[in-house]
Amino acid sequence: MHKDYIYFQLPTQQDIINAESRISRFIHKTPILSSATLNEIAGCELYFKCENFQKVGAFKSRGAMNAVLSIPEFQLRHGVCTHSSGNHAQALARAASLKNVPAYIVMPSNAPKVKIEAVKSYGGQITFCEPNLQARETTLAQVQNLTGATEIHPYDNLKVIEGQATVALELLQQVENPDFILTPVGGGGLLSGVSIATSYFSPLTKVIAAEPLGASDAFESFYSKKYVPSLNPHTIADGLLTSLGKYTFPIILKYVSQVITVDEIQIIEALKLIYQRLKIVVEPSSAVVLAAVLSNKQLFSNKRVVLVISGGNVDFDTLKRIL
Amino acid sequence: MHKDYIYFQLPTQQDIINAESRISRFIHKTPILSSATLNEIAGCELYFKCENFQKVGAFKSRGAMNAVLSIPEFQLRHGVCTHSSGNHAQALARAASLKNVPAYIVMPSNAPKVKIEAVKSYGGQITFCEPNLQARETTLAQVQNLTGATEIHPYDNLKVIEGQATVALELLQQVENPDFILTPVGGGGLLSGVSIATSYFSPLTKVIAAEPLGASDAFESFYSKKYVPSLNPHTIADGLLTSLGKYTFPIILKYVSQVITVDEIQIIEALKLIYQRLKIVVEPSSAVVLAAVLSNKQLFSNKRVVLVISGGNVDFDTLKRIL
Repeated sequence: MHKDYIYFQLPTQQDIINAESRISRFIHKTPILSSATLNEIAGCELYFKCENFQKVGAFKSRGAMNAVLSIPEFQLRHGVCTHSSGNHAQALARAASLKNVPAYIVMPSNAPKVKIEAVKSYGGQITFCEPNLQARETTLAQVQNLTGATEIHPYDNLKVIEGQATVALELLQQVENPDFILTPVGGGGLLSGVSIATSYFSPLTKVIAAEPLGASDAFESFYSKKYVPSLNPHTIADGLLTSLGKYTFPIILKYVSQVITVDEIQIIEALKLIYQRLKIVVEPSSAVVLAAVLSNKQLFSNKRVVLVISGGNVDFDTLKRIL
Repeated sequence: MHKDYIYFQLPTQQDIINAESRISRFIHKTPILSSATLNEIAGCELYFKCENFQKVGAFKSRGAMNAVLSIPEFQLRHGVCTHSSGNHAQALARAASLKNVPAYIVMPSNAPKVKIEAVKSYGGQITFCEPNLQARETTLAQVQNLTGATEIHPYDNLKVIEGQATVALELLQQVENPDFILTPVGGGGLLSGVSIATSYFSPLTKVIAAEPLGASDAFESFYSKKYVPSLNPHTIADGLLTSLGKYTFPIILKYVSQVITVDEIQIIEALKLIYQRLKIVVEPSSAVVLAAVLSNKQLFSNKRVVLVISGGNVDFDTLKRIL
């Protein structure tokens, strides 16, 4: 099956270096945090790469910014578009506004008000549609026909993947020779970018994906080597509900060393530890990586392990329910 | 009244520099965070000095460490003691354990279990007493007689104040020429240290105290120039319930430019903004400084303002109640 997917040009080492210089004016270099107590609990050296401190509160700013800056001017002036109700929508709206072009965002009519407001606050122009995938895609096609805007997919876009790859390029300058890098996996944009970049810049470092059991399509796809879509996913890690894409699946198959699944209780426990010990606000999706370490202590024993904290956008109602 | 208090030797410029080198191996240099959105909301440049990332989750680690390291060895081997159920108790227990001496902590019998566990986890030896000030003081005197331990008061101790002063020394290396530095005020240890250090190292910078209306003894003492104790304080900023001390009151009178009070609604709104925008976990006492800026926008308009985030130790039940 996945053989169909393999004939595309991966971002090269130089592409990723270029992406970093392209976006560096527009994004934060995020810090690495660590905690002696968490290291003791985990039995290894943990380095948290804090993309919750990134612009728009998530790594998505990198990919969206890189994609927007890579579109030729004559095309870019018609704007960009996507369907998303999450961090990518905000990140794309912000990236477009920095280039003074419109961002058209298709969102389901039942999207939470706080997310609608967030996209508007970055200047995004919202078109609502019925809350199903078909309606999203039809509406997006209509918007595109009407405006001539360029679609920027949240993860299945090589320029987006190249942007997310800068997370790894940056963290490898901050942490020397890590044994492992863990990222959460939803659609696989972050995981793809990080695993490609790591293969270039630190080939001995293994990249591992962490995924909720309740949305384990990447796990199933990875080990069966067949594309398995995400059907009826259910997890508090609401950034990780989506299926892999035609680019991200083969990249992950090639560059990722394993996929670890964790259950909801493990995710919540890890989330609490991050709040208590690191003193940072993260979204539930970000806790999946720590949960993966804590449920596989032998694998990581005494190793140097980087955990990518994907974002910090969580509403207070969700927090109150979880904590 | 306060004339009685004025004949003591303040920490000198060199004392504070010495304190910084004395404690630097044992504490974190904490980062400065900022947020474009918060700057826009506040109408000024805000720099958050994040002592929530400090060891033990609070600036108290600095003062306790400096006090412990300043005791002569022959005396230190009998240990240290204090009465506290808050961050100082943990900080002192940690400092003592790093020097391999006992820390005797007197705590009220109704102290929250989580705080008792925290002190124990740093090796503190707890003696419980009735939950009133007299019982605390009597019990502490007994412990001291029995052990020969040196009392380290949470804030009314010049070596503690000298340690807290390193917050300002450090932040003035991170932020050039701020117009204002704001700290919360409870007993006044942090405020005293920061205001003395600022007078030495950045004399044009004004130091302002932020205080909850429900515990406004510093405000009343400052403007009446008479010592007013904290009677029946009531605020969610539970680190700020205490009265000023015999050292901290005259220091504050001399070095602080004004005291701003804020109400509980303002504190909660500021706390939420810090969680949402800075993505960091802070205790309610730390939100008082941002509340003071947001309720006095004219005063701070277009200025460079450093806000000292005092700590990040907040339990989930409190958080759920507030958010």
